[in-house]
Parts: sequence; structure tokens; C-alpha cells
Amino acid sequence: MKHRLIQALHRQPVDKIPIWLMRQAGRYLPEYRKIRAQAGDFFTLCKTPELACEVTLQPLQRFDLDAAIIFSDILTIPDAMQLELQFITGEGPRFTDPLRTYKAIDKLAIPDPEDDLGYVMQAIRLTKQALANKVPLIGFAGSPWTIACYMVEGGSSKNFAVIKKMLYDEPQILTLLLQKLADSIVLYLNAQIAAGADVIMLFDTWGGILTPNAYREFSLYYMHNILQRLHLQQNKHHIPTILFTKYGGNWLQDIANSGCDAIGLDWTIDIATARQLVGDKVALQGNLDPSIMMTNTDSIIAAATKILADYGKHPGHIFNLGHGITPDVPPEHVAALIETVHDYHKNVGFY
Amino acid sequence: MKHRLIQALHRQPVDKIPIWLMRQAGRYLPEYRKIRAQAGDFFTLCKTPELACEVTLQPLQRFDLDAAIIFSDILTIPDAMQLELQFITGEGPRFTDPLRTYKAIDKLAIPDPEDDLGYVMQAIRLTKQALANKVPLIGFAGSPWTIACYMVEGGSSKNFAVIKKMLYDEPQILTLLLQKLADSIVLYLNAQIAAGADVIMLFDTWGGILTPNAYREFSLYYMHNILQRLHLQQNKHHIPTILFTKYGGNWLQDIANSGCDAIGLDWTIDIATARQLVGDKVALQGNLDPSIMMTNTDSIIAAATKILADYGKHPGHIFNLGHGITPDVPPEHVAALIETVHDYHKNVGFY
Repeated sequence: MKHRLIQALHRQPVDKIPIWLMRQAGRYLPEYRKIRAQAGDFFTLCKTPELACEVTLQPLQRFDLDAAIIFSDILTIPDAMQLELQFITGEGPRFTDPLRTYKAIDKLAIPDPEDDLGYVMQAIRLTKQALANKVPLIGFAGSPWTIACYMVEGGSSKNFAVIKKMLYDEPQILTLLLQKLADSIVLYLNAQIAAGADVIMLFDTWGGILTPNAYREFSLYYMHNILQRLHLQQNKHHIPTILFTKYGGNWLQDIANSGCDAIGLDWTIDIATARQLVGDKVALQGNLDPSIMMTNTDSIIAAATKILADYGKHPGHIFNLGHGITPDVPPEHVAALIETVHDYHKNVGFY
Repeated sequence: MKHRLIQALHRQPVDKIPIWLMRQAGRYLPEYRKIRAQAGDFFTLCKTPELACEVTLQPLQRFDLDAAIIFSDILTIPDAMQLELQFITGEGPRFTDPLRTYKAIDKLAIPDPEDDLGYVMQAIRLTKQALANKVPLIGFAGSPWTIACYMVEGGSSKNFAVIKKMLYDEPQILTLLLQKLADSIVLYLNAQIAAGADVIMLFDTWGGILTPNAYREFSLYYMHNILQRLHLQQNKHHIPTILFTKYGGNWLQDIANSGCDAIGLDWTIDIATARQLVGDKVALQGNLDPSIMMTNTDSIIAAATKILADYGKHPGHIFNLGHGITPDVPPEHVAALIETVHDYHKNVGFY
């Protein structure tokens, strides 16, 4: 069976526009909150394959979504590198000892995906089995730059002053870290593919805080390097890749040249403008403002319809939000969004 | 005497590229920290014209800057509307009672600039007198959207969930607030011009979190409306205007059509790309990554020279950072930057 998501990522015609949502397995779902409470904390949930599989499947039991994305976190890699993480309520993750020196970075070992991150592969295997090929499963990792931001700053940051000083003052230290992360991510994602991931996505949450040159040199370069080393040919199929840089609207043409199959768009660029910039080179995923999901179904339908119309009658559109769905969204709003996207072609025809 | 800054804002040839820095009167200067400590808190400093004048002049006593910008804050207007502000160390300003209802917004009075914000006009008059026309004085305000973000959220915010919900769910409430703010800003900036401001700048710190449509409708529309109502013809001179939207790189052509004389650029767009987009329509101000200012003079000189070269030999470049200078910058780095910018034409020739 051909999946809509895979077809759209390959810019082939589809019967309906595929849709999935970043963070679709998350706190806006009461059944997620229940399992999360049962697990105790967020990372325990990530590290318990049966529970990670269960929450991955939850949104698909409720909604007619066109993909599952494995429930995990971009900080699994630094965790596997033995950096101690603390989760402080309302603040997000913090590393006890942020990485600041060549010595500390030089000491980091590249995690073995099955030995050190086996819980992710096990969750993927369980989920693949449960999905029974009904929809494809997306595997993912953070970008080297984004993971490095957390490791060097210690957590989220307002100005990213520490890592940006490192970037400008001691680029060789930062480069060592980024290369180690890229090497780790290649092994990690290849193991996810071997375990059954049908699509691979890189999340570059913090690439957008860089200058264009620094973005190309310290973020995009390593993502390109990763894409080149992934085992994307599997059983005569090409595993499609999606690259998402938040606030990356200025650099879409550079991203389109990175070798990815699709670009994830945040909500700050018109999808029509984005398509003009990249043409037929890549598919586009996005880009509803996640804030609209809190409002009401009329507003959601109007805003989604505008994006569908703006993308126009070309193959290669995967509907998504411009960023993760937030905890305050009523689940029925998600149902209304999915229906709007799937019914769109009935009203306006296709290609 | 013709000032470089004014000439560059009018896209006329200059003897040297003019430079000033956002937040040039600030905590990176020990003499500022002294006066700030003397005033007690930040807003008392803003509200004491003699001290505001003194700190406005401080960076000009140290450095060969091409402009002064009146020391003040974008929250003077909500303060004059009687919204109670608290300053919590490390958190920035917070409003005790964030604005959430039509009734609360409807009650707000438009401040009278001389009665309610006279301390700003007095600081401008004192500073103009002290400057004796050596360099021009920039007056400024926040954009309606940006001020509204603080008033509705209560302070800075990660996702701006409250005001974005208002935008999508109850746009008529938000519109009432934005129109009141625009009316207030028109009176406020016209009073600044009458008091002696030679240039006017609008700071739209949070426009970049919006979708393109929402940016045009809820931020740019009101800035355009303000620019149209300013008394920019003074003694046969045109007072130039600068519009700065952080993360506004996707919308430069829209901004260029707003009626402003110059666009302030953040560091996330190449100034050469920006110039291609706007052509000769407006001058461009920017756009060194403020993080570079923490590093070392070699890196600063190299990065500044690249921006100067990228802008190329056209009139209309005002050098600045892409955002405010941060407290950790050694003042000698600023001196090196200014020298680099002012000496550039000696090395490469002009126009």
C-alpha cells in the first residue's frame, strides 16, 4: 500500500493531502497525561519502550492522521553521552554540567545506538508492529547545532550568549562538538531506519538565531553531512527526509539544496512564497500557526483552507503546524483540522 | 552642518558610513551603571530628565558615534496609561494587571504627551541643548503590536499564547487596543519631534512571531498608520523614520512600502540580500550579530568589514547591531567597531 505521506514527500500525486502534527502525542491528550503520570517523569516515559509505543499510537486511535512519529526527545543523545539532565517543572530540561571546554567535549563518547539508545529502537520496533503498515512511522533527531545549544548553554536560553561566544571565539571547540553530534546522529538515525522508521526528520529548533553565514557553517553543513551518510535506500525504497529549521524562512533555498526531500516550514512565511523560492525541488510541510489551534473550529478551518489554497495544485504538500501543538488545545479542534485537510480536494479538485 | 546619519537615511552620499548602536547607553558602560545605581531603578532613571540626558550623552563622550538616542523605554506609554509596572530582577518588566477584556481596554485613556510623558520631552530638550547639534538625536517608540504584547501577556512570553488567542478569537478587542496605542504613539512622537528629535524610530520587537498576514494586519498596518500621521516636515527638513521589526527578514518588501525612510535589520539576513529585495527604496540600518561584540577585536573587525562590503558602494547604509548591545561587551570593542566602520571608505573608496 502506498502511503499518502510518502507519496507527498516524493512529490507524487495523492488522493488526499496528508497531515500529521508535530508533538501530536502530547499533553493536549488526556490519555497521554494519564500515561505520563504513570511513568512519573518525561524521560522515563521516553525510556520505557512499551509506554513510548503506547503514547505514539494514542493520537492515531483518536484521529485520522497520516503518520505516527516515535515518541522521544532530541536530548536522548546527550543523555546517552552521560550528560546528567535535570527536569525542572516550568523550565524544561537543564544539564547539571554544561559543556564549555575542549577537554570536556573531547572526552564525550559516540553512543552506540543499540547499547546506549536501544530503548528508542525497541519503541520503534514495537510501534511498527502495532501499526501493521497502516501509516508510516517517522523517526527523528535534533540537529547537531540545536542539541549543542542545550549542551553548551545548559538549557534553553534567551540570547544563547555562551554558545555564540564559542562559535565566534573558539569555533574549533564548537566544531568538535558538532562533528561528534553529527557522527552520533548518523548512527542513531541509521539504527532507527534499521528498526523500521519510514521517514526521517531533523529538528533544528535553534538554527534561526544565527546569521546566514553561521547558519550555513554551523547548522546546515552538519545536517547536510548527516543526510549524506544515512542509509536511505531500503528494499528498493528511498526513505524520505524532512529538515525543519524554526525561523529558517530566509534560507529556504539553501535548505532545499541540502539533499532533504522536504522542508518543514514554521508559520512566519507564506507557503506560497516558500513554494516560489524552492519550486519543485522539495516537498513542503506546514505551516499553520499553532496558536490558531487554541481558538475555534471556524478560525481553524479558514486558516487551514487558506494554506491549502496558497500551496496550490502542486504535488508535495504535507499539512502540519508550524511548530508543536500546545497543551491547551482541545482535541476536537484537531479533528476539525484533519477533516478540513482531507476534504479539501473534494471541494476544489486536484492537480 | 549636514549630519552623516541624516544624509545616509536620505540615501545621500556621506564622507563616512554613520554608526550608532541600539542600547548604546546601557549596562556595558561602567558610568551608566553608576547613574543607574544612583537612580535606584530603571524607570526612575527614565523619568528623571537630568539623569536620562546624562546617560544619553555618556556613549558620545567615549566614542565617535554618529547619533544619540534618547534614553527611555517602550513601556512609557502603558505606564502613562496608568498600568502598574513591576520590575523583577532577571525577569524584566511585568504588568500587575494584564489587559484581557474589552472593558479594560475601552477604559484606557490616550496619554497627553506633555502632561503624562513630559519627562521624555524634557529629557529630549536637555539633550538637544547639550548636544549643540554635534550629532542628531533619535526619538523612538515601541510599535503598537509590541507594546500590546507586553500589556496583554503581562510581560515577556515564550509563545505569546494569550495575545495570539486574542488576535484570532477576538480581533476587535485587539484592534481597539492597537488603535489606541497608535493614537497615543502619534501624539507621543509628534511631541518628541516638537521637543527636538531629529530622527524617529519604531521598535517592533515582537512582529516577527506573527504569520505574514497577521504581521501586515496587526503590526505593519499600525506602524504605517503612525508614519502617515507624524509631523515629519520641520523647518523645510524631512525628519527621517526607521522601522525595525526583529525577525522581519521575510517581509522586507512590505516594510519598505510602509513609508519609512530606513529599515532596521536584525542579524538573521544578509544585508546584500536585503538590499536586493528593497533596492533604492529605503536605507538599511544594521546588522552585526550583537553576540560578536563579546568576542575580540579581530573577529569584530572582520565581521563588520564583511557587512560593509556586502552592502556595497551604494548610499544609504547606517551601521548598527542587529539588536541591542548586551551588558557583557567590553567598551573597547565598541571603539574598535566604530573605527572600522569610519575608516572603511579610506581603504576601499566610495560610491
